[in-house]
Amino acid sequence: MKPLDRILLAHGGGGTLSGALIRELFLPAFDNPTLATLSDAAVFSLPPGRMAFTTDSYVVTPRFFPGGDIGTLAVAGTVNDLAVSGAVPRFLSCAFILEEGLPLDDLRRVVGSMARTAAQADVQLVTGDTKVVERGGADGIFITTAGVGELRTLPEGWGTPLPGDRVLINGPVGDHGFAVLAAREGLVFDTPLLSDCAPLNGLIDTLFDAGVQVRFLRDATRGGLAAVLNEMAAGHDWGVALQAGAIPISPAARSLGEILGIDPLFVANEGKVVAVIAAADAADALASMRSHPLGRGAAIIGIIEPGLHGLVTLDTDVGGRRILDMPLGEQLPRIC
Amino acid sequence: MKPLDRILLAHGGGGTLSGALIRELFLPAFDNPTLATLSDAAVFSLPPGRMAFTTDSYVVTPRFFPGGDIGTLAVAGTVNDLAVSGAVPRFLSCAFILEEGLPLDDLRRVVGSMARTAAQADVQLVTGDTKVVERGGADGIFITTAGVGELRTLPEGWGTPLPGDRVLINGPVGDHGFAVLAAREGLVFDTPLLSDCAPLNGLIDTLFDAGVQVRFLRDATRGGLAAVLNEMAAGHDWGVALQAGAIPISPAARSLGEILGIDPLFVANEGKVVAVIAAADAADALASMRSHPLGRGAAIIGIIEPGLHGLVTLDTDVGGRRILDMPLGEQLPRIC
Repeated sequence: MKPLDRILLAHGGGGTLSGALIRELFLPAFDNPTLATLSDAAVFSLPPGRMAFTTDSYVVTPRFFPGGDIGTLAVAGTVNDLAVSGAVPRFLSCAFILEEGLPLDDLRRVVGSMARTAAQADVQLVTGDTKVVERGGADGIFITTAGVGELRTLPEGWGTPLPGDRVLINGPVGDHGFAVLAAREGLVFDTPLLSDCAPLNGLIDTLFDAGVQVRFLRDATRGGLAAVLNEMAAGHDWGVALQAGAIPISPAARSLGEILGIDPLFVANEGKVVAVIAAADAADALASMRSHPLGRGAAIIGIIEPGLHGLVTLDTDVGGRRILDMPLGEQLPRIC
Repeated sequence: MKPLDRILLAHGGGGTLSGALIRELFLPAFDNPTLATLSDAAVFSLPPGRMAFTTDSYVVTPRFFPGGDIGTLAVAGTVNDLAVSGAVPRFLSCAFILEEGLPLDDLRRVVGSMARTAAQADVQLVTGDTKVVERGGADGIFITTAGVGELRTLPEGWGTPLPGDRVLINGPVGDHGFAVLAAREGLVFDTPLLSDCAPLNGLIDTLFDAGVQVRFLRDATRGGLAAVLNEMAAGHDWGVALQAGAIPISPAARSLGEILGIDPLFVANEGKVVAVIAAADAADALASMRSHPLGRGAAIIGIIEPGLHGLVTLDTDVGGRRILDMPLGEQLPRIC
């Protein structure tokens, strides 16, 4: 491999090589007039109203895994944070920290994934930065995206689940974390295990467009379904009662979880949203989710139950009930 | 040092330890009601109009240096990118990538610097993220900030320097890069060399408030004064003619530059803005810069000269003229 097939320190130095990287790789991939100005900041207008703003760093290893890569994640994850906040994602920034020696082809592939995912989510990458650190200073490629979106007009009761509300999810949980783990460890299966990583804003649009009373949305990323429900319930009189048998888990995730002793409910997803919906609208919400390609496996998995005092419980098919605790940390590090 | 005096992988896992870090460190330091909601995205209103959006990653090593640290930089740098774009910086996001084993005291000190710099710049840190990578996976601490600001009403002629315009800078160049280099190499001097890193939005407000015709602003970071002027002039019929004797350089930076063979004009600054001002207003602009604490060393250093075809030239005190080229990359990596 020739020297210029790899990232050099000078690619991050703000000089000629930085300029070449921007013109030859980033501009064609993220093609839009706002980015093309290459000014210190992107300038655009948003309609008057409230806006949402979020950021996440992505450090997943390996950087390519079945179903996606760090670039897919970096766009989808930030889009999803905006979408579950009730915003319509519009503009993304993107900052790369690259390790000297990174194959340019790897960067090209990641940037291609970012561009495709941005197009899928109908957002524009309008500003960015690239830093290069010497060999051993970082683990290949880290990406930090930030996103800006317009807050939509939210339904009455938004933000506060109430006892009796139903808890929905748009499909099987755990696939992302297990797919990354399998790629990391070189595990091979009969049934391929694919990451679910995808931008969820289209699915969430469908849900809001259905006119159902959406009380709460959250993407179930680090710490999995268990963490997001524990966070939601913490400090409330009510809790969440889940039906174990109702929670969709793919056969591959289930068997890998059993082999490794890792509960899929604690495993990160990157394309799953937890939706709390008023009981009367739960069936309509389920139907609207299922009408979207990313919600075909949607299910009603539990209920907001009074008196649980912030706990999340899991009712098993044989009639037992156990508490689903907040995880101390992610069981699988470097998952996003 | 006890285990919990250091960053663990679980601090980035989205579980109990992540929550503790947020509640005990980030929330008290960045104290503001928008951040305190701890939702997936910060929500706020901006007045109708155009907005500016920018991002930068900070990877400087060492993380503490005379005059600042990676936290000061991460806030000031992004504030400055907004300010030179003609925006009033308002809200910042902040994403940490931490290496397992990082002393919590180091993080505390960096976060303290971020909070102080944000207060100085009158911006709020409203949303964030923390990832932890295993030992050897990153070099201690990387910070990525993104910023949102309101575009001000810009003077006629903004964005396009014209032949005859004067080029100003608010003080001596090269101190930041040399201060970081000296800290990295353990060099000790009689006169301490301090980084200039500071938020420049207040100084830039002063300049706009003076009602002078500001044609162009850019902070002279990576690649130094030489890179920013080359970028500005590229593709134009005109160029920039600098007067070597007029460019402020501190005695410490000058002597270190001579010893190391590094031209201070190519060395990164983190508190220097290049301002191109209509000739008739140059004296007023200089006076207004000098009235601000961060502009006391301001000077008129050159002129936009027709016929230079995108070149930046340096007229020496003995009557010679040489071309100041675009650097290939940063001479000193990991400077910001």
